[in-house]
Amino acid sequence: MNEIDSQIVELGGEKHRQMASVLVEALPYIRKWRGKIVVIKYGGNAMASNPKDENEILKSFANDVAILQSVGIRVVVVHGGGPQIGEMMQKLGKTPEFVDGNRVTDQETLDIARMVLVGKVNSDIVRAINMHGPLAVGLSGEDAQLIIASLRHESLGFVGDVKIVDPTILFRLLSEDLVPVIATIGTDESGQSYNINADVVAARVAEALESEKLIYLTDVVGVLKDKDNPESLISALDISSAKELIDQNVIVGGMIPKIKAAIGAVESGVKSVHILDGRVLNSLLIELFSVSGLGTMVTK
Amino acid sequence: MNEIDSQIVELGGEKHRQMASVLVEALPYIRKWRGKIVVIKYGGNAMASNPKDENEILKSFANDVAILQSVGIRVVVVHGGGPQIGEMMQKLGKTPEFVDGNRVTDQETLDIARMVLVGKVNSDIVRAINMHGPLAVGLSGEDAQLIIASLRHESLGFVGDVKIVDPTILFRLLSEDLVPVIATIGTDESGQSYNINADVVAARVAEALESEKLIYLTDVVGVLKDKDNPESLISALDISSAKELIDQNVIVGGMIPKIKAAIGAVESGVKSVHILDGRVLNSLLIELFSVSGLGTMVTK
Amino acid sequence: MNEIDSQIVELGGEKHRQMASVLVEALPYIRKWRGKIVVIKYGGNAMASNPKDENEILKSFANDVAILQSVGIRVVVVHGGGPQIGEMMQKLGKTPEFVDGNRVTDQETLDIARMVLVGKVNSDIVRAINMHGPLAVGLSGEDAQLIIASLRHESLGFVGDVKIVDPTILFRLLSEDLVPVIATIGTDESGQSYNINADVVAARVAEALESEKLIYLTDVVGVLKDKDNPESLISALDISSAKELIDQNVIVGGMIPKIKAAIGAVESGVKSVHILDGRVLNSLLIELFSVSGLGTMVTK
Amino acid sequence: MNEIDSQIVELGGEKHRQMASVLVEALPYIRKWRGKIVVIKYGGNAMASNPKDENEILKSFANDVAILQSVGIRVVVVHGGGPQIGEMMQKLGKTPEFVDGNRVTDQETLDIARMVLVGKVNSDIVRAINMHGPLAVGLSGEDAQLIIASLRHESLGFVGDVKIVDPTILFRLLSEDLVPVIATIGTDESGQSYNINADVVAARVAEALESEKLIYLTDVVGVLKDKDNPESLISALDISSAKELIDQNVIVGGMIPKIKAAIGAVESGVKSVHILDGRVLNSLLIELFSVSGLGTMVTK
Amino acid sequence: MNEIDSQIVELGGEKHRQMASVLVEALPYIRKWRGKIVVIKYGGNAMASNPKDENEILKSFANDVAILQSVGIRVVVVHGGGPQIGEMMQKLGKTPEFVDGNRVTDQETLDIARMVLVGKVNSDIVRAINMHGPLAVGLSGEDAQLIIASLRHESLGFVGDVKIVDPTILFRLLSEDLVPVIATIGTDESGQSYNINADVVAARVAEALESEKLIYLTDVVGVLKDKDNPESLISALDISSAKELIDQNVIVGGMIPKIKAAIGAVESGVKSVHILDGRVLNSLLIELFSVSGLGTMVTK
Amino acid sequence: MNEIDSQIVELGGEKHRQMASVLVEALPYIRKWRGKIVVIKYGGNAMASNPKDENEILKSFANDVAILQSVGIRVVVVHGGGPQIGEMMQKLGKTPEFVDGNRVTDQETLDIARMVLVGKVNSDIVRAINMHGPLAVGLSGEDAQLIIASLRHESLGFVGDVKIVDPTILFRLLSEDLVPVIATIGTDESGQSYNINADVVAARVAEALESEKLIYLTDVVGVLKDKDNPESLISALDISSAKELIDQNVIVGGMIPKIKAAIGAVESGVKSVHILDGRVLNSLLIELFSVSGLGTMVTK
Repeated sequence: MNEIDSQIVELGGEKHRQMASVLVEALPYIRKWRGKIVVIKYGGNAMASNPKDENEILKSFANDVAILQSVGIRVVVVHGGGPQIGEMMQKLGKTPEFVDGNRVTDQETLDIARMVLVGKVNSDIVRAINMHGPLAVGLSGEDAQLIIASLRHESLGFVGDVKIVDPTILFRLLSEDLVPVIATIGTDESGQSYNINADVVAARVAEALESEKLIYLTDVVGVLKDKDNPESLISALDISSAKELIDQNVIVGGMIPKIKAAIGAVESGVKSVHILDGRVLNSLLIELFSVSGLGTMVTK
Repeated sequence: MNEIDSQIVELGGEKHRQMASVLVEALPYIRKWRGKIVVIKYGGNAMASNPKDENEILKSFANDVAILQSVGIRVVVVHGGGPQIGEMMQKLGKTPEFVDGNRVTDQETLDIARMVLVGKVNSDIVRAINMHGPLAVGLSGEDAQLIIASLRHESLGFVGDVKIVDPTILFRLLSEDLVPVIATIGTDESGQSYNINADVVAARVAEALESEKLIYLTDVVGVLKDKDNPESLISALDISSAKELIDQNVIVGGMIPKIKAAIGAVESGVKSVHILDGRVLNSLLIELFSVSGLGTMVTK
Repeated sequence: MNEIDSQIVELGGEKHRQMASVLVEALPYIRKWRGKIVVIKYGGNAMASNPKDENEILKSFANDVAILQSVGIRVVVVHGGGPQIGEMMQKLGKTPEFVDGNRVTDQETLDIARMVLVGKVNSDIVRAINMHGPLAVGLSGEDAQLIIASLRHESLGFVGDVKIVDPTILFRLLSEDLVPVIATIGTDESGQSYNINADVVAARVAEALESEKLIYLTDVVGVLKDKDNPESLISALDISSAKELIDQNVIVGGMIPKIKAAIGAVESGVKSVHILDGRVLNSLLIELFSVSGLGTMVTK
Repeated sequence: MNEIDSQIVELGGEKHRQMASVLVEALPYIRKWRGKIVVIKYGGNAMASNPKDENEILKSFANDVAILQSVGIRVVVVHGGGPQIGEMMQKLGKTPEFVDGNRVTDQETLDIARMVLVGKVNSDIVRAINMHGPLAVGLSGEDAQLIIASLRHESLGFVGDVKIVDPTILFRLLSEDLVPVIATIGTDESGQSYNINADVVAARVAEALESEKLIYLTDVVGVLKDKDNPESLISALDISSAKELIDQNVIVGGMIPKIKAAIGAVESGVKSVHILDGRVLNSLLIELFSVSGLGTMVTK
Repeated sequence: MNEIDSQIVELGGEKHRQMASVLVEALPYIRKWRGKIVVIKYGGNAMASNPKDENEILKSFANDVAILQSVGIRVVVVHGGGPQIGEMMQKLGKTPEFVDGNRVTDQETLDIARMVLVGKVNSDIVRAINMHGPLAVGLSGEDAQLIIASLRHESLGFVGDVKIVDPTILFRLLSEDLVPVIATIGTDESGQSYNINADVVAARVAEALESEKLIYLTDVVGVLKDKDNPESLISALDISSAKELIDQNVIVGGMIPKIKAAIGAVESGVKSVHILDGRVLNSLLIELFSVSGLGTMVTK
Repeated sequence: MNEIDSQIVELGGEKHRQMASVLVEALPYIRKWRGKIVVIKYGGNAMASNPKDENEILKSFANDVAILQSVGIRVVVVHGGGPQIGEMMQKLGKTPEFVDGNRVTDQETLDIARMVLVGKVNSDIVRAINMHGPLAVGLSGEDAQLIIASLRHESLGFVGDVKIVDPTILFRLLSEDLVPVIATIGTDESGQSYNINADVVAARVAEALESEKLIYLTDVVGVLKDKDNPESLISALDISSAKELIDQNVIVGGMIPKIKAAIGAVESGVKSVHILDGRVLNSLLIELFSVSGLGTMVTK
């Protein structure tokens, strides 16, 4: 830096220099993502167990969504709510039962799931985002035939698979600069409702929207080479490596269905899938607007 | 009728003649209402107590809404769900408490009300309408800041009054030929939610939309001169007569707030308010597309 | 029907039940045909010989057209006027001459045909429809180069075949929710006018518009298995059966050119061609909005 | 002109110089009139008595209209057809009867007038213009409720006055770059047709369209100071002078109703009214695109 | 011409007849070229050496451009400015150096070229056109990345070839009825500017716009069979004949690169290329709006 | 901060926290300024004397403009170029002469000013911005009659005042997301060009666009209470205080015309005028997207 340059910097001051440096780093991304669709899976587990913290995290998440929307990114939120459903079942004296990770869902459980997902979790997210303006609109898969579901297996009760995602209503809301927030309830052609896995819905919605990005906000830092060492984070992963890592048992447990859904989404045209730690404040901003990013990115 | 005419009719047959006669009677109305906004308050009480019947009535209602939409009427549905909230409270071991007809609403009751209204009643109505196509979209007053509420009285807890209705999201959905279905939860500026009386919300929404009609689907035949004689139905009523009938104690009980809301709506620009018996199958069609109509109509 | 149901029906009354039943039957069709193009050939013969009746039939026809338009069907009317041309020739002391069903058309006859078709029949239809609102616009094939014609045969004089239909003006008027009413006069490239068979024009217009339906309003009930038994009506016919029936002399006389034009239209992309008895009041409504229909439908 | 200049001109040649000079003179007008509405009354009398000449004049007129349209002027043609109606009546053995210049019009006469105006004169004009492309669309006042008429006086039969001109259909056609050609038949609210004076219709149409110009193509050179001296043409006239000239008996005979209609039109917002000799070939072009013009112009 | 006809002509007079005749001849062309894109290369040499004449020619050129624009032709002007650059270099004491007809361009020469082309020649043309209204907008190839250039040869300095023409900004301006005037400076991806041959830029711009015509305004009458005989003008030429004439040394000197660019443009989709004498006043009008035209036209 | 919170922050790391903090601070401004018009006067003096530094500053400026544009701000740049004009005059052996701060401008000086402003300074700015994409379009006041000028005083030669700014072309370019860059040459109605003060043009352009902000990028830190103490910066100033400071001789020298233009702009509807030090890198970003800002802001 020559004499004049340093003089110029001096005029602005250190604080301004940092500010400018962040904005300048963020610029190519702000321009790059403008108008692009980003689907965010906001997991029940990304909300911390402690209500006070949950509140903090939800506020940070809502804030990030509002920022993304304000710079022209078209955001779609998909959420689950497993813990919250379990809690309500307990209050009503029902015991959750699981088979292979699927919640066995009788009519009463379905009613509870629907009420909790649509009437509580969805509403809470919508309200948090709308503290920043009239931005979010809550949807369930039942609205405007967004998600047509089918029975997964009779033994599981009303647990559904995604048969068709009709993104028409989403495109309409996005074209009005609104943020659709989707609860993962779907119906079949006869009008029967089903509870559907949110990771899968997020992937299928991202595919149907041919979205730029699908982001899983989870409670882990990303895919780890050594699951016990958070420092061993794998930042970028193509789909063939991802498949190998599953075969090699490096990717294990709850990460497997996420990575499988990610692979499917990338194969169906989503440009990249990101697995982020939703507990990091403003993690969405850092991931989208910095060179280094956080978490693990899966691409073709 | 001359010889040739009768011969012509013969060619068509009696069944066809009736069909033609209904269509011909309906014509001026189909044309007249096309593009007009009709707000329908679908009451918890319009759903019969017997689940089997409720199903039948809800199906008939959904069918009517789909017909109205298909002939170009822009329908908005507002619903309550008092009985269903009461039922869920009971299941959760809470005892409903009322003051002057208002449900005293602590935080837990509010959570239940929100879940039941948004996650159950709203979803049921949306799903029933969407059996006819991707038509309905469920909303609560929290979506896109549709309803800004204010506290009614501290003693009542989270019971809200309507402060502002921002119809922007409704106009957007209507312009896409969608049917907004509104659960009557609102928030204040701080993000606190409130449970709001559905009759009032319906009137305020109708005003904000400058709608053609506001229709209350109830469990009575309309305003009666003699409340014990269903034959004494008053078909049409202007607002000054309506006020007189309240003063003269002809209009009494639960009909009073409805008629007051109706008067307010008409004074604010809604062309007519209709009080219909929601238990009559296809009552909406008959009211809108026949000369005689059903129930009581309030106009300026 | 259980007790409650019957009670509900009672509330509405028999008349209302019938009304509702017609509207409910008509619904799927109203939705199905909305925005679709329907070309109607309104024949000179569909107007009864008795002026008083003709008036009645024309009014019923105009009413039907207005109803179709009001529920969003895009209607195009094509008409002939053989009997009316003959009548005027007689008044002017000219003797009509026919060769193989074609009216031999010298310059004077052409002038009369043009005046009668454009200045009388067309205007009468337009005026009758416009009693219901500013809906209809009269056109001849000379307007905006709608129909380019060519000489059929020198011996016939100015009898034309359809060379090209340019539907641009029709699409423009339809997009303004107007009803084009077409008199079947065309011109060739040199500006010479021709009188053209209306059945053929209707088929070619329907093809050019890729219309949903082409409807021939005639003075017969449809295609009969036994031409002397009106009960032997064939309701539906695919084009190969239609060809067979011509070969087998079941379809005879004036029905042959209609069916041939119908076959051509269906082969060129029109979804269905209907042959109806125009003398049945409201026959268009019954055909389009009831399950059973009237007359004969030809499809692929 | 200096040496170089004259050399340049030489390069182009005299013919080119004249051509360029006309185009250069026309330029400011082409730009000025672009997008403006010009209503042209094309009179039955502007068509010469000799059919061969009429043909020539009609062709020249049609050519002019096509030129005007091609440079972006929005042209509306209104025509009468008195001589042609008289001729047809004669052929049909009816004797025309006039009261104060109005043709007494019984039902039969009306039918003849309608046929001749709509089915012959209108079609001839439309066809002549359309030799230049798909430009013209024939209308009568019955189309899309363009002209609502009222009875002038019972003694005259079906002679109408203009009650309302609804220009909606005209604006629609003009916005599609089409040239409406209007036959002066109107209907009243009951559907009864009337024959209306074309000079009056032209003025009222020009008013309803808030048109830039109204041009009367007649068989005189314009308003003359001395009616026996064609050299005494008055080129420009404001409305107060026009009124004076009527009072002073300078304007007499058939010119009076034209000038009165012109005054009314100018008072209602038409910028200028022109009275031209329609027998001069290309008179419209010369009037609109040259500095000097032809005929008489009436302005405010 | 019969008696009546001659009488009609007499009414109009000789001057009017000529005027009408020019307008009538121009009509089919006005209609034909409306909405079409015409790229005009306006050469430094088309401006005469004498400043006074130059002014006259520039005014005539600007007038023609305004006329073309006013009749709906979408005009793009590309200009060079060799003589003017040379003049400025002289003033600044620099000696122009040429290799194979290319001006050797060091940084200082480039700065001068840019200033003269963009800041003088371009501005003069824009200002001259804008005397007729707010029509012209000056551009250089640096605006909105219109021209991406590449180095021709190191020995020539900053002389560029056209790599890519991005016509987006041109289409935007044309859609606003504006006339882009382009100075032939381009930049490469690194931001380095280049001076580019205007004949080539004009051809490449015409190709990128898929324009109807490319017109070279030069200081010769066109392609001559015998270059010493101006009477031996070749009016029309297809591209194979053009190639032959180059091989046969009939086309020689400065005409060769023009014809080669013309051939390339025609092969890339430009309908016709015209070589006109820009010193003939209104040459553009005469070429575009008369049957005979001026100069040489190259077509496929 | 409780334990969990600090743990969350830890997950993200200090660098991410700063990044997030800047983005979160910038958010309300990004949203607030989106779609708003900001006019930036980029002064010849804001470009440092040393060419190397100038380059750095111009690059930083161009980068800022691209960032602003990418977040939806509609930017218009107005520039002068006094020093650069002086330099060129010197090269051409002319001696600049000033009267009351106005450059006396004979025809030759005007030609030089035009060439330098339009052909050099403007092109340099356009090219620098366009390194970030096809964003900028160079204009002079002569394009599309953007600036109509009038003679200031005969003694000054071709020094102009702004008579009218016609912002049409600016709105067109802005609506295409382009950045107009304006050189301050204007013409009068006769086509004579003038050199105009850039501070004044910027203010008048900002008024004509009813812009949100007008920013003067200068070589001082802003308005100082004590002109010798850069620490005595006045951050915010309303127009009455500004007038007082001029009366009290606190505002002196070259700052007076800027503040006067600022006052005029604010009085004509510009929301705020900012005086910034253009030598601070990214000063535009810091001013627009931070709470504290830089320089002096003048508001009503």
